[in-house]
Amino acid sequence: MSELSATERTRHRRLREQGRTDRESLFEVLRAGFVCHLGVVVDGDPMVVPTVYGFDSGHLYLHGSVASRSLTPDAVACVTITHVDGLVLARSVFEHGVNYRSAMIYGVPRPLEGDEKLAALRCLTEHLAPGQWEYARQPSRKELAATTILAISLAEASVKVRQGHPGDADDPHDVWAGVLPLAHTWQAPLTDPQATRPVPGHVLRRAGEPL
Amino acid sequence: MSELSATERTRHRRLREQGRTDRESLFEVLRAGFVCHLGVVVDGDPMVVPTVYGFDSGHLYLHGSVASRSLTPDAVACVTITHVDGLVLARSVFEHGVNYRSAMIYGVPRPLEGDEKLAALRCLTEHLAPGQWEYARQPSRKELAATTILAISLAEASVKVRQGHPGDADDPHDVWAGVLPLAHTWQAPLTDPQATRPVPGHVLRRAGEPL
Repeated sequence: MSELSATERTRHRRLREQGRTDRESLFEVLRAGFVCHLGVVVDGDPMVVPTVYGFDSGHLYLHGSVASRSLTPDAVACVTITHVDGLVLARSVFEHGVNYRSAMIYGVPRPLEGDEKLAALRCLTEHLAPGQWEYARQPSRKELAATTILAISLAEASVKVRQGHPGDADDPHDVWAGVLPLAHTWQAPLTDPQATRPVPGHVLRRAGEPL
Repeated sequence: MSELSATERTRHRRLREQGRTDRESLFEVLRAGFVCHLGVVVDGDPMVVPTVYGFDSGHLYLHGSVASRSLTPDAVACVTITHVDGLVLARSVFEHGVNYRSAMIYGVPRPLEGDEKLAALRCLTEHLAPGQWEYARQPSRKELAATTILAISLAEASVKVRQGHPGDADDPHDVWAGVLPLAHTWQAPLTDPQATRPVPGHVLRRAGEPL
């Protein structure tokens, strides 16, 4: 498996046993969600904004409008994607924690234009809602002009995963311990009262599936 | 209802119809989750880290170790909490979006000591896992010393909520449109193979409940 880079920013400092260094771990985290937290620096202060993303083998794609206020050339962004899988209920309060999968990506967002922009928007849309790019009305020239799409390289990234039971089995405090899992599940689609068509198969089949 | 402050940082700039300005909306978002994304500035670049939180009427409480690397006096942090409620599947790709509830809090994290620190750790633990503070072993002096707890004032905060169906009912593209809801649900607890006690009621009763 190809390795993730370890720069000064992405080297695992704490809880190193939770760090993953292969690229496939990164893609697993990226596949498992569609909302990230984008961090930028605005007037010297951090700003963290939730936004949707898509990705391919080399880049993360974001809707840029949330960052437009702060987007300056060469400014680094930090994008973090986190899936919360459960609570770790230990014998001691000190060992309580969370089972999670998380990726952190550092890069300079680059606004896309032309064919590259359209391809990235398609990638992003299909990641959120597979099948919708062909089913829904594709963007007009005007809509495309009103959309900012940013690409961030996946070259500088780190992944952390925590799974399994609490680590304090040797604690003398004799109580139940374990994990309370959290599931993220698509529900049955809700039809817009103003829509007249039936729910298409590509939407219907997601109901009951995990995120 | 008391109003949230609107500073230069928290004034709603985009999609103002999604902005909420009452404090109860903030507490609704805080109650509905337990993992936030903490943004800090490290060597001029943003860093966004997922971490657990608790809160009371005036403050957010965080485990500080994730921020310890970067925690400098008077440095502002941005904490964002996001709940993803569903996908908005519109007639046009352009109008696709996400139903969500999100809060953003700006403040200077203050490390707590003594009784204040213990009370905040209890608050944080009980927010994650109600009932565990009394059930599990409470922290020893040594464990407490190894824990950093930060308080961030809730005075400077903004809340955004998007709910309901797509906004493009007037689009001539005649297809199905609606919302694909996403549910976050606690599952049946998994017992640590090394635990001998039965699952306590305060854990068992969360299974099947929404996050």
